[in-house]
Amino acid sequence: MSYEESYIEGRNAVMEALRSGRPIDKLYILDGCHDGPVSSIRREAKKRDAIIKFVEKEFLDRMSSTGRHQGVIAVAAAYEYAEVEDILKKAEDKGEEPFIFLLDNIEDPHNLGAIIRTANLCGAHGVIIPKNRAVGLTATVARTSAGALNYTPVARVTNLARTIEELKDKGLWFVCADMGGEVMYDQNLTGPIGLIIGAEAEGVSRLVKEKCDYIASIPMRGDIDSLNASVAAGVLAYEIVRQRLKKV
Amino acid sequence: MSYEESYIEGRNAVMEALRSGRPIDKLYILDGCHDGPVSSIRREAKKRDAIIKFVEKEFLDRMSSTGRHQGVIAVAAAYEYAEVEDILKKAEDKGEEPFIFLLDNIEDPHNLGAIIRTANLCGAHGVIIPKNRAVGLTATVARTSAGALNYTPVARVTNLARTIEELKDKGLWFVCADMGGEVMYDQNLTGPIGLIIGAEAEGVSRLVKEKCDYIASIPMRGDIDSLNASVAAGVLAYEIVRQRLKKV
Repeated sequence: MSYEESYIEGRNAVMEALRSGRPIDKLYILDGCHDGPVSSIRREAKKRDAIIKFVEKEFLDRMSSTGRHQGVIAVAAAYEYAEVEDILKKAEDKGEEPFIFLLDNIEDPHNLGAIIRTANLCGAHGVIIPKNRAVGLTATVARTSAGALNYTPVARVTNLARTIEELKDKGLWFVCADMGGEVMYDQNLTGPIGLIIGAEAEGVSRLVKEKCDYIASIPMRGDIDSLNASVAAGVLAYEIVRQRLKKV
Repeated sequence: MSYEESYIEGRNAVMEALRSGRPIDKLYILDGCHDGPVSSIRREAKKRDAIIKFVEKEFLDRMSSTGRHQGVIAVAAAYEYAEVEDILKKAEDKGEEPFIFLLDNIEDPHNLGAIIRTANLCGAHGVIIPKNRAVGLTATVARTSAGALNYTPVARVTNLARTIEELKDKGLWFVCADMGGEVMYDQNLTGPIGLIIGAEAEGVSRLVKEKCDYIASIPMRGDIDSLNASVAAGVLAYEIVRQRLKKV
């Protein structure tokens, strides 16, 4: 599988890509350009939850390989997204209780890649990310995942809080990493579990936090506020691994 | 400690600063200046992860305080390296058994920053890095450390294996993360401890590994080879935290 991210340039090409349902991570539009075709592209992109960025002409020129971008360049996802069902099926096929990572708006592609890498190695069955705001499966994510993206399914959902509700109906329970919870070592983290990791700056959003069954805290003995998001994910994930191993 | 920056002006002074390994944030070079000495400076600066900016003569003149910049001004980051003694003293002052991170040639500044951040939060007393090959305390490292560099001392040593020997004489023992060791959950990781983290690609070097008392393995249940270096450091460090908390 290749790590390439592909750029789609020009109005017709971008519109076609959007209509075909091809996953578009980001759409660059010339700032101040509001004519009919560009407005249609924007509407379509919004429906598909692509991130839209308004940029200068120089930016597009530099990005363009054809020199005929007509004010629009779309960045297509390097990888195909899986469905939540695929993740549950993976657990079932292995005869294991589901262990899923849910990322609440991780924005840094290096963090997303490192987290997918951790998900693979700690035996999680997949990763769920939200469609809006968060970073998608770009080439940087693929590279940073060190190949894990070839094995660990990543699903993208419109509403993370609703997905949590649906997974609760299937027997999963949810823990998020945040301050003010019980120290993770003292909690029971076995069973079918969803591990929720918050965004780099804001942490877990209120709506998502309200859905969590437990808040698990990583002991903090230092002077600063918080661990890097991918490190925090790793530390919590491996506490889950430890407890699962002990239980067997 | 402050984030203050100092300016270094003139070709020799800048080259010396770069070669000495002093952290350089940014390097301003006169646009269009490509002669031999300036090219050498650029090469050296790239190796050290400095950001290079090409600017007009007026810009350099305004920035210069000596009036003799010769087309190059470097902005040095204000982070000073600590001594190994400072780290041991920090443990002593806190009345704790020493807990030190030793990084065997971490090359990615994002990883180094994230590891210093983790060292701070898990209560380690400092970080030791080797002088050669590894990345130093660049601006990227400072930023990625999220402020931890203001609190956690980082010492740089010529020979990591020799430093390990010296610290063993002071009662520390050493564990490194690698494949083929005993699973970390089953090892006793309490007491005065040095945690050794290997380089991103090659892992812990042979010479350093031979000095270790134990090899601790993180359970790997996936399809790929290894965790990101900063995630692996976090997972092992927090297993040490867990065992220390349990012991109290």
